[in-house]
Amino acid sequence: MTAHAGPTRLLLAGFGNVGRTLAGILARRASYPGLADLDVAVVGITTGSHGALADGRGIDLAAALTSFATRGRFGPECPEFAALDTARAVAVLDYDVLVELSPLAVAARGEPAIAHVRGALERGRHVVSANKGPLAWAWGELTELAARRGGALLYEATVMDGAPVFSLARHGLQGNTIARIEGVLNSTTNVILGEMERGASIDEAVAAAQRAGVVEADPAADIEGWDAAVKLAVLANALMGAELTPEQVERESVAAVTADRIAAAGARGRRIKMVCELERAGGSVRGRVRALELPLGDALAQVEGTGSMIRFVTDILGTFTVAEERPDLAATAYGVIADLFALNRA
Amino acid sequence: MTAHAGPTRLLLAGFGNVGRTLAGILARRASYPGLADLDVAVVGITTGSHGALADGRGIDLAAALTSFATRGRFGPECPEFAALDTARAVAVLDYDVLVELSPLAVAARGEPAIAHVRGALERGRHVVSANKGPLAWAWGELTELAARRGGALLYEATVMDGAPVFSLARHGLQGNTIARIEGVLNSTTNVILGEMERGASIDEAVAAAQRAGVVEADPAADIEGWDAAVKLAVLANALMGAELTPEQVERESVAAVTADRIAAAGARGRRIKMVCELERAGGSVRGRVRALELPLGDALAQVEGTGSMIRFVTDILGTFTVAEERPDLAATAYGVIADLFALNRA
Repeated sequence: MTAHAGPTRLLLAGFGNVGRTLAGILARRASYPGLADLDVAVVGITTGSHGALADGRGIDLAAALTSFATRGRFGPECPEFAALDTARAVAVLDYDVLVELSPLAVAARGEPAIAHVRGALERGRHVVSANKGPLAWAWGELTELAARRGGALLYEATVMDGAPVFSLARHGLQGNTIARIEGVLNSTTNVILGEMERGASIDEAVAAAQRAGVVEADPAADIEGWDAAVKLAVLANALMGAELTPEQVERESVAAVTADRIAAAGARGRRIKMVCELERAGGSVRGRVRALELPLGDALAQVEGTGSMIRFVTDILGTFTVAEERPDLAATAYGVIADLFALNRA
Repeated sequence: MTAHAGPTRLLLAGFGNVGRTLAGILARRASYPGLADLDVAVVGITTGSHGALADGRGIDLAAALTSFATRGRFGPECPEFAALDTARAVAVLDYDVLVELSPLAVAARGEPAIAHVRGALERGRHVVSANKGPLAWAWGELTELAARRGGALLYEATVMDGAPVFSLARHGLQGNTIARIEGVLNSTTNVILGEMERGASIDEAVAAAQRAGVVEADPAADIEGWDAAVKLAVLANALMGAELTPEQVERESVAAVTADRIAAAGARGRRIKMVCELERAGGSVRGRVRALELPLGDALAQVEGTGSMIRFVTDILGTFTVAEERPDLAATAYGVIADLFALNRA
């Protein structure tokens, strides 16, 4: 995968929860038997406004984590400190893979992550994106650019954390045409509905989800269905040959689900879930995020708390479901690791 | 994948439900958009005692299916009729891939399918086995032989029909160590428990399962837990680095589950399921098939009828579940097709 000898050199753009968890796993990789042959070195870490590190020989990740935990930023006290923002690091550092870990920006329609990804692909580098924005808003441009410049663009961590949704569809469902995808894909709204089933008001439920630490930096992205719409755009583009943007996905807010509606569903032995759907309609793909009342026998009705589930309806294999239960940050970080393994196989 | 030009040449050993369904899909493959680039020709079809066909230019599958449906066997009226049994066909025909579709033989510990697979691998050919026996009873020998002679040995259809269990683990879970696998993997016993929940006696429930067409030719293989034990052996060998045989798996018969026990579980808001488990224990892997009372919140408790589910517990990704709902024979046939695509990628 790399032209030079030695480890695959990673540039991490973003050092939030997922970035730090990934760095922690890489720092301790001797304790994971399956990671023995993952030969990588982090040569750069950039952040939005918390400083940056760079070292072509590889950053000491344990020291970087300790320093960041102590000061909340990278400063000149770090031996690898560098005056670099992400855009400049993408353009000038010598790396093999940009790992895009910056937060999703709905209002900015995926920027500046799109620019980071574009910059790396233009230099012929590979990109592993845990940020959904570039795949949701710039699918056609970026996949075409990757193909033209010979870099890979991978994104396993964008939907259902690191669960192997995209590698599954690439390898395990080959030959099938996916007619329909449905799922429960947003943790925050699922936690909110669970709290409301137990009697909480919507405000209490949102507060509970925030205490649980599952709400995005911008809660509206979850509550108004944007996070789910962005995920549906990625799934439609990657798995159903669409070029769908999040704005084209119909959205219903979880705030529209009343306590009465939840209680009435419960009285009928049913549950309200925020269901994400993609369906072929003529030559295009229709996406919807909406509150649906499901019978308890529907597996989607059984997704609890921060769990998630996707059901694929295909023409040969039939109906196949993948689910994740109680994921933690390591699950998302694993999505990046899965993509690094995929690059090594390519 | 093939040394010669032209389509990949398949020898089908077995023409039961799965073999005929596979042949039907291949005969109609123009109607599946995803199969457009699956370039295969069936050059031989053998059966245990219902005749055989062979034609190096490719058998007319639609005609073969019609003829078999009419007469229940292949006879001299077929233009491609051949006086061949499977062992001889494996040894003398010119094919690229042996597709092993003969029925599982528990009492014979996987024979004669093991001999067929060995014969093909010794000739350096690839093998796609939908028969679990060779993987359960001869894992070490056959994987070593495949590696030594340069043939591939694939087996996606052996567990959970054609759902991508093994390709998932090979591609999507790479880097994880699987600590534990649990699942509901046998349709017959799951249908039986469902019937008993609705008030049927065990005999009535078995009869209902037989009417539903889900019981293996030898019902004891399902009822006594052998089918599940064989599947656990395949999973342990392929995914957990074990060399486990079905005899080493602890088995409990569904016949040991009484109506009273099912009713008592129901009264507690729980369900009895035949749960299959693999667990690392010291340097080896322990396998068990047993009736367990599960809370309704456990996804395994929600597997209905002929559905199935596997839960993987891993060290990095955490807990990940795959499930199949209402599979038909095409789902199993798809397992073979998935392996043919995998061979084409190799």
